[in-house]
Amino acid sequence: MVATHEPGKQYKVIGTRPIRHDGYDKVTGRAQYGADIRLPGLLWGDVLRSPYAHARIKSIDTSAADAMPGVYATVTHADFPTVEDRTIDAGEGTVNFVRQSQNVIADKKVHYRGHVVAAIAATDKNTALEALGKIKVEYEQLPVITNVTDAIADDATIIIEDLVGSDLGNDVHNTNIANHFRHEFGDPEKGFADSTLVIEREFNMSMVHQGYIEPHNATAIWTNDGRVTIWSSTQGAFGVRSQTAGLLNLAESQIKVNPVEIGGGFGGKTVAYLPPIAALLAGKAGRPVKVQMDRKGVFEGTGPAPGGKMGIKIGVDSAGKIQAATADFKFEAGGFPGSAVGAAAICVMGSYKIANTRIDGYDIIVNKPKSAAYRAPGSPQAAYAFESVVNEICEQGGFDKLQFRLDNASHEGDRRADGPIFPLIGTEETVQAAMDSDHWNSPLDKNPGNGKVRGRGVASGFWMNGGGKSSAELSLDADGQVFMNEGSADIGGTRASIAMQAAEYLGIAAEDIHPSIPDTDSIGFTGVTGGSRTTYATGHAAYNAAVAMVEELKVRASMLWGIDASDVEFNDSSFSSKSDPELKLGWKELAARLDETGGPVQTAGSVNLSAAGNGTATHIVDLEIDPETGKTDVLRYTAVQDVGKAIHPAYAEGQIEGGAVQGIGWALNEEYFITDDGTMANSSFLDYRMPTSLDLPMIDTIMVEVPSPFGPYGVRGVGEVPLAPPLAACRDAIYDALGIHLYSTPMKPGRILEALEEKKKNS
Amino acid sequence: MVATHEPGKQYKVIGTRPIRHDGYDKVTGRAQYGADIRLPGLLWGDVLRSPYAHARIKSIDTSAADAMPGVYATVTHADFPTVEDRTIDAGEGTVNFVRQSQNVIADKKVHYRGHVVAAIAATDKNTALEALGKIKVEYEQLPVITNVTDAIADDATIIIEDLVGSDLGNDVHNTNIANHFRHEFGDPEKGFADSTLVIEREFNMSMVHQGYIEPHNATAIWTNDGRVTIWSSTQGAFGVRSQTAGLLNLAESQIKVNPVEIGGGFGGKTVAYLPPIAALLAGKAGRPVKVQMDRKGVFEGTGPAPGGKMGIKIGVDSAGKIQAATADFKFEAGGFPGSAVGAAAICVMGSYKIANTRIDGYDIIVNKPKSAAYRAPGSPQAAYAFESVVNEICEQGGFDKLQFRLDNASHEGDRRADGPIFPLIGTEETVQAAMDSDHWNSPLDKNPGNGKVRGRGVASGFWMNGGGKSSAELSLDADGQVFMNEGSADIGGTRASIAMQAAEYLGIAAEDIHPSIPDTDSIGFTGVTGGSRTTYATGHAAYNAAVAMVEELKVRASMLWGIDASDVEFNDSSFSSKSDPELKLGWKELAARLDETGGPVQTAGSVNLSAAGNGTATHIVDLEIDPETGKTDVLRYTAVQDVGKAIHPAYAEGQIEGGAVQGIGWALNEEYFITDDGTMANSSFLDYRMPTSLDLPMIDTIMVEVPSPFGPYGVRGVGEVPLAPPLAACRDAIYDALGIHLYSTPMKPGRILEALEEKKKNS
Repeated sequence: MVATHEPGKQYKVIGTRPIRHDGYDKVTGRAQYGADIRLPGLLWGDVLRSPYAHARIKSIDTSAADAMPGVYATVTHADFPTVEDRTIDAGEGTVNFVRQSQNVIADKKVHYRGHVVAAIAATDKNTALEALGKIKVEYEQLPVITNVTDAIADDATIIIEDLVGSDLGNDVHNTNIANHFRHEFGDPEKGFADSTLVIEREFNMSMVHQGYIEPHNATAIWTNDGRVTIWSSTQGAFGVRSQTAGLLNLAESQIKVNPVEIGGGFGGKTVAYLPPIAALLAGKAGRPVKVQMDRKGVFEGTGPAPGGKMGIKIGVDSAGKIQAATADFKFEAGGFPGSAVGAAAICVMGSYKIANTRIDGYDIIVNKPKSAAYRAPGSPQAAYAFESVVNEICEQGGFDKLQFRLDNASHEGDRRADGPIFPLIGTEETVQAAMDSDHWNSPLDKNPGNGKVRGRGVASGFWMNGGGKSSAELSLDADGQVFMNEGSADIGGTRASIAMQAAEYLGIAAEDIHPSIPDTDSIGFTGVTGGSRTTYATGHAAYNAAVAMVEELKVRASMLWGIDASDVEFNDSSFSSKSDPELKLGWKELAARLDETGGPVQTAGSVNLSAAGNGTATHIVDLEIDPETGKTDVLRYTAVQDVGKAIHPAYAEGQIEGGAVQGIGWALNEEYFITDDGTMANSSFLDYRMPTSLDLPMIDTIMVEVPSPFGPYGVRGVGEVPLAPPLAACRDAIYDALGIHLYSTPMKPGRILEALEEKKKNS
Repeated sequence: MVATHEPGKQYKVIGTRPIRHDGYDKVTGRAQYGADIRLPGLLWGDVLRSPYAHARIKSIDTSAADAMPGVYATVTHADFPTVEDRTIDAGEGTVNFVRQSQNVIADKKVHYRGHVVAAIAATDKNTALEALGKIKVEYEQLPVITNVTDAIADDATIIIEDLVGSDLGNDVHNTNIANHFRHEFGDPEKGFADSTLVIEREFNMSMVHQGYIEPHNATAIWTNDGRVTIWSSTQGAFGVRSQTAGLLNLAESQIKVNPVEIGGGFGGKTVAYLPPIAALLAGKAGRPVKVQMDRKGVFEGTGPAPGGKMGIKIGVDSAGKIQAATADFKFEAGGFPGSAVGAAAICVMGSYKIANTRIDGYDIIVNKPKSAAYRAPGSPQAAYAFESVVNEICEQGGFDKLQFRLDNASHEGDRRADGPIFPLIGTEETVQAAMDSDHWNSPLDKNPGNGKVRGRGVASGFWMNGGGKSSAELSLDADGQVFMNEGSADIGGTRASIAMQAAEYLGIAAEDIHPSIPDTDSIGFTGVTGGSRTTYATGHAAYNAAVAMVEELKVRASMLWGIDASDVEFNDSSFSSKSDPELKLGWKELAARLDETGGPVQTAGSVNLSAAGNGTATHIVDLEIDPETGKTDVLRYTAVQDVGKAIHPAYAEGQIEGGAVQGIGWALNEEYFITDDGTMANSSFLDYRMPTSLDLPMIDTIMVEVPSPFGPYGVRGVGEVPLAPPLAACRDAIYDALGIHLYSTPMKPGRILEALEEKKKNS
């Protein structure tokens, strides 16, 4: 069933820019988001959050709240199945429902400020808030650890006392290091010895948040047949189902998740924080319950991208060939194990061919929110550190920054630093396109005479792109319209990009496909919308369903003509007989005659795919900086990326633009500003400074199409890799403008002024 | 793909009585009915109904209503596409969207009291009601016709002035007879001449209502991309889609109908009264609108079963063989063409083999609500008349009433009086089972000494049972659970009866199938739940999907074993190799290994079927009557019916019991009490007297299983034929008790007393 891409093929639908199927719904208000769910008898659910970042819970007394009129249910960790009762417990480091249940509602300790300790369901919001105030929690405060250095100190307070950490595969007790792993190939020490220039640097990064506009929400009904129905804005309804099942010890088939529309996710809406709480409240209350976070709850109680410490060492020979590279990543997991350090290790050297490599990764518990995925999780941190050292190597070695990347580019057949061999990869083509770009070849006036200075920076990035399981179904109407069910949440236009792949095969317009994303009972299993897997994997499932539909329609045509189905061929959306040219039916003609041949035509397609082809990107940025204030403006930005094949170019560009913008925010402004007691001091969108459209120029995109060898159309994921290069590119532009190297994010005005001060002192 | 029934086969799932999948939802309130739909910005829609039964609309002025604060939209017939604009107009007598649009909102005339003349959308109910009061309608009253005799009188006022009626195929103008058709076989006059006993009688019947508990409702959103989303309690979401599309001149693919749960339909929820109104209001208002009827609106403005006049003539020879029979049906279509007279003609002689027959059917316009389907539409009226004459023949001829039916029973190969040849039919077996029943063989004390008298009655009935188009999809989970999408509204337990047919083939429990009924975008076309087609046709679609799933799973097992799929067999829900007995995988074992073989498994099945095998029934009833008051009590009731194969016996019995109860209500109490000016005087459940459980004994059922030759399990429809026999059976029991023959329904206390008075006078 798997066709392979034909390079250079001209498509009718793929590569065009139809209006997305959900466009009108989303601008007219017909689209249903989580907050829109209204059910008869619906109760308001809310949570009580810890005022301390690290404390033992000595007691929780909900009796005064329970006694209040209008309160229907209170829930604490005691309402979760006990460890002994659990049927699923996959161990530390992977999906661990004991740990996740402790994160959803604190058990014996609170691990971070804002950690949920209790939840309540009441007739309305005011009653719920009043009742929350009547819950008495007795805390014993404990020392707070807010960074990885303190966490791994010999005398560090142990945050998770029963944690069984792993050090290169060996169990470790009494530690804040949940995991330490290593990938090593070749002989790095010999590589450094063979080098003529070796640079080693250490970088510090703060946690940042995905910053999706829509807060988390969940509405649940739990009736006494044991079945739970959930509505939740999520990147993956099946993920909410499996997590809620695992957390509540239910069979997955007992849970139905309705995937309402999602107002941004970027990886952060892959974790089920509220669905299990809403379900437990609904079960106890005997009524439907809706729970929504406020912005403070989102910042304090969901999963930001990990900060931490990154050490990078690179050695090159005099010709500018990298001889060895090592990376040491100490990532803040947050209050529970599981940061993106593993993915950071996969991505860090993905754009390069390096014979001798060693990567150490540490997943470290600190008193901060449990980190979660954020758009190419781990890769922006890794690229910030690695690309910055690459740029310093080029500066000191006198190498052109793009030529250096070209000379050291990864190619098909090379080994990735964590082991696998690269399939066809567009690293070289992407860097070459950046070298050929108008931006790179346009001079920059570094001193425009307005008291500000300008600089240009460049950096690359890598993301592996995902695969996995997806399902789609197609159904043909009598008027030739095709209705599509698919299981992937639509975040960035995936209804369109999936439908277009089916439309292309069927030879019909994208608008003639009508996509739906049904509940988990009504479509086959489909993995999360994330990992840049959706257009690739769910698109392939839809393609398979289209292939099956054409085969079924050949049978139908053969029945009408009284010939063998093998004599029917399909071209240009028409069916004809190979042996009798008189026999010919257009798409709509045949669709109108299904009743004569057995009734409606429905087909299904599913896949379980290995990763799509890897994604590579190179970004160029021009910054203007005011040396008096340290304020930075983006003048021009060009993102070059290998997309494999842009199914819907506008939405692929949108992904690239969005990734670049988030990267600029991360580079220049965004951070969890955590005080010593573990409080986030800027937990609102007023104080947590994300760039808006007023802060930025248009982002230019250059899409390179090196078709992935996998799947019918050569699609690579596009959503994630654009967040990898911006941090180091901005740092490079700051250096180009001011001659200062920064080693921490965000590279905010204060840091720039400090570095300028330091430079002045040393000069 | 079509397996045929194996008589005598023992099944694992079919024939058992699992709890229906929607049972808990419906008793705990999780099930969503139309009234439960709540959307952000939802407006209240309501309608203005005509106070006159026949009038010309001279003008409608909505300006005062439009000017009211809180009023968002008013709609009149002028908002429908004009006749000239219509792309679909199938002509009188079939689906006619011009006529339906005139029924939904009156055009130039009101045809019956309660006819909708305008609709309004406002912020809330009170505002809507106040605004409705400000709409000024100028009427010119016209003479009112409330019965078929007046309607066909030479000087009758013509209700539909542009009606083109048909008289045996010839166009007729200036008439209230929309259609007159005839079926004639053999030589009826010769048959009557050959008879030794001929009886001819005329019967009068009043309109009755289906009496579903839940009033009609519709919620709609119409956004400016031209797409309409509708929620409505209906027997067929695709019917709402096609009717709304036809009425509003939209493509069906522009409309998505969400099938919320339905609180009873019985044929009456096949017509889209409110969806087009809600859609038009929503389109004009730019906001979602919900419209719900009250009970008075349901009685006055929906589709009751037609009343009318029925003439029956039967001739028999001295051996009790029917030599000839004729029927003359004059049915009240109501205010627009299209009564159930055609189906009455199909059913009237279905239980009998008669060589010489003639049936005349008339569809007649009167100033009453446009009639609609009601459970075996036309058959109860036909059976009331025909079975009553059969019983009188038996009385006068001295024939045993059941032996007579046995002697004259229809068999496979006989001709039905409207033409078709019967396939295998269980008439004889059903009558025989009634003869063998405990009820029939238990003596009845006709004078119990309490001042009341008792009588026993019997009658038979026939329904053809439907076929048509249905779609189902199955999806297999990693834990072996199967999720099913099917397109049929679940009125009487069809989720269970459809799921059980798939479960049987798959060898899993009914509870391991999880049924959903998705919106019209998300499942293949499926006809209405009605005609007793659903368990047969949609069950067959699910069976086909199950067959496809087993075939796909054979391929998956063969991949795991490295053998050819043709070497894999499936027995007792296990897969094994024919050639290597070591290779064996249970259902759940294989389900857990789908990821290794390409991912999720989903399959689809669809059908377009000719009718299921016909349904026959014979009912026995014992009544006790108070001769002082005419009040009648049901003492004992036994319903015998050929169900083909009872998939879920409890729900098949439930259908039979419900049909019998509705028939008892129709026989003894229910009627549209219409005053001379066309007003329904009893338009509430207080005054429209339906039997409740307190009025009735338990209904005994005897299910005969003469498997239908069509479909995998021999299923016949069960829902409709049980409404055919009760009317004549009750009439027969009244005769048995009191020696009076009644010729009108309902056979209410007043009529019984009048007949007793008449009898006294004549004796």
